[in-house]
Amino acid sequence: MMTKNIIISKIKEVKTLAILPHVSIDGDALGSSIALAYAVKELGIEPVIYIEEEIPSSYGFLPGIEFTKVYQGEKENYDLVLALDTGDTGRLGKRIDIFNAASYTINIDHHMTNTEFADLNYVQTSSSATGEIIYQFIKMMGIPLTKEISTCIYVAIATDTGGFRYSNTTSITHQIISDLINNGVDVAEVSQLLFETVSLSKTKLTGMAVQTLEILENGKVAFITVTESMIKDADAKEEDCDGIVNIGRNIKGVEVAVLVREKENESYKINLRSKKYVDVSIIANKLGGGGHKNAAGCTIEGNMEDIKQILLKEIREVL
Amino acid sequence: MMTKNIIISKIKEVKTLAILPHVSIDGDALGSSIALAYAVKELGIEPVIYIEEEIPSSYGFLPGIEFTKVYQGEKENYDLVLALDTGDTGRLGKRIDIFNAASYTINIDHHMTNTEFADLNYVQTSSSATGEIIYQFIKMMGIPLTKEISTCIYVAIATDTGGFRYSNTTSITHQIISDLINNGVDVAEVSQLLFETVSLSKTKLTGMAVQTLEILENGKVAFITVTESMIKDADAKEEDCDGIVNIGRNIKGVEVAVLVREKENESYKINLRSKKYVDVSIIANKLGGGGHKNAAGCTIEGNMEDIKQILLKEIREVL
Ligand SMILES: [Mn+2]
Ligand SMILES: [Mn+2]
Repeated sequence: MMTKNIIISKIKEVKTLAILPHVSIDGDALGSSIALAYAVKELGIEPVIYIEEEIPSSYGFLPGIEFTKVYQGEKENYDLVLALDTGDTGRLGKRIDIFNAASYTINIDHHMTNTEFADLNYVQTSSSATGEIIYQFIKMMGIPLTKEISTCIYVAIATDTGGFRYSNTTSITHQIISDLINNGVDVAEVSQLLFETVSLSKTKLTGMAVQTLEILENGKVAFITVTESMIKDADAKEEDCDGIVNIGRNIKGVEVAVLVREKENESYKINLRSKKYVDVSIIANKLGGGGHKNAAGCTIEGNMEDIKQILLKEIREVL
Repeated sequence: MMTKNIIISKIKEVKTLAILPHVSIDGDALGSSIALAYAVKELGIEPVIYIEEEIPSSYGFLPGIEFTKVYQGEKENYDLVLALDTGDTGRLGKRIDIFNAASYTINIDHHMTNTEFADLNYVQTSSSATGEIIYQFIKMMGIPLTKEISTCIYVAIATDTGGFRYSNTTSITHQIISDLINNGVDVAEVSQLLFETVSLSKTKLTGMAVQTLEILENGKVAFITVTESMIKDADAKEEDCDGIVNIGRNIKGVEVAVLVREKENESYKINLRSKKYVDVSIIANKLGGGGHKNAAGCTIEGNMEDIKQILLKEIREVL
């Protein structure tokens, strides 16, 4: 029997079931989990989604948040535990106890690096999001795509494809989205909540960060700096620094963008992005960090000016 | 016979053919025109796309730019002239001469306000973009969707739907996009060129604009100011002001966003945006301008502080 069919049979035969999305939950992990929870509930089971931390307020608009429960160290033995969008057990955090205590475990994911850690593993790396896989399961289970389920899967896929812009977006992705819209997703409302809502702090921090923009090497290199005092002045959080490096990367003509984030004690967190040909992981590796060709990072100690010079020297070599 | 079939017959029977997208060309007008030009060329006709102004550099990456020609007042009598994405003849600019001199004219569009100004009019307001309609024509004509045609239609639709985020995005929109991706669109590359490439000047101007951000009325109102000297300092153009009002609108909790753009002689161009319930056209109308519920504008003379107070007073009444 196909793995998919075995998974569906398993879900249909159990009495208690828990779902575990990964730590630092994102739209795919959360959307997939809630969609599956709705489907399981249709079968007469009361599912619980154990989450590691509170749900970020940006996903507060999702239906079905009532399925989720922040894990408090409960010792529970579920008939079935499903890990969703989770590449390895490290991404289960403290909830590994729930996973280990389960009678049976299933792992549904799309990460290339998945370690196949469960009793049954369904890893489909061609899917842009775990949401695509959950969509297929729900269709196979014959459960109707309600507006709630459709919205959750839409959010899952829209998040992991960067709004259908990344290279993981396929023809099948859009076929699924087409079906979800047919089943009631309010595209404009969800898109606004998901992509066009920015906190005041982040808006302020972004403005300050742009003021530090330095363009070097004939427009090919962009440096942006975020200092501790900027974070304070904007009343911002660490997560508000996310994406600021892309302001530099998105500038026409820029190939390498750097975000220098000043931490305490003359320590600097460096984010590196390249647009096309430069492999920034080479630079990050040399400086004790790591990453991928187009996105890498490292941490350096010293003073701001020295660090910029060190980075610039390394960038010049690969530019 | 259906209008669509008549249009296809007409295209197939003529020897000379010109395509006219609207003035201030956008991704839909240009993408639709080039896609149709490729299709017509397959039939053995050499089409010309007459454009009013040079193509904005942001669309320079599109294939088939060689079909376009900036209109220089040529007196030509075409067998067939097709106006695309054009709501009324005013949007044809000087090229109205080409239109009027044609033996036969066809108007293909999706604007609700289309005045049906041609010999034959095909206006499908349920389509998110004229690109959707051109896609249907090309399929009906039996012409293969090459990578070039697919890319042009993708750009047309992605532009007019704001990257599949606006309420005009339908289930059919995504079905078409799915087919276009099957036919070779490089989603990541096109998306980066279309949505993630910003000029240095615009980036700088945006940073400066955010520095002027004022949040009023318990976080419900955002004011952003762009002065003449900011434009100069950023080496920016007027068009770089586009979208700056949305920085205010996108802030969590903001209902009304205002962009005050200082022009010469104590004249101010005001952009108003609302997120949900406020009808900003009421405010704009009162002040001699106009627009829609969620997007409106007007021009006021006076000094900056007085103008802000006038606007704030009007906003308070509808907030
Ligand atoms: Mn994922
Ligand atoms: Mn259009």
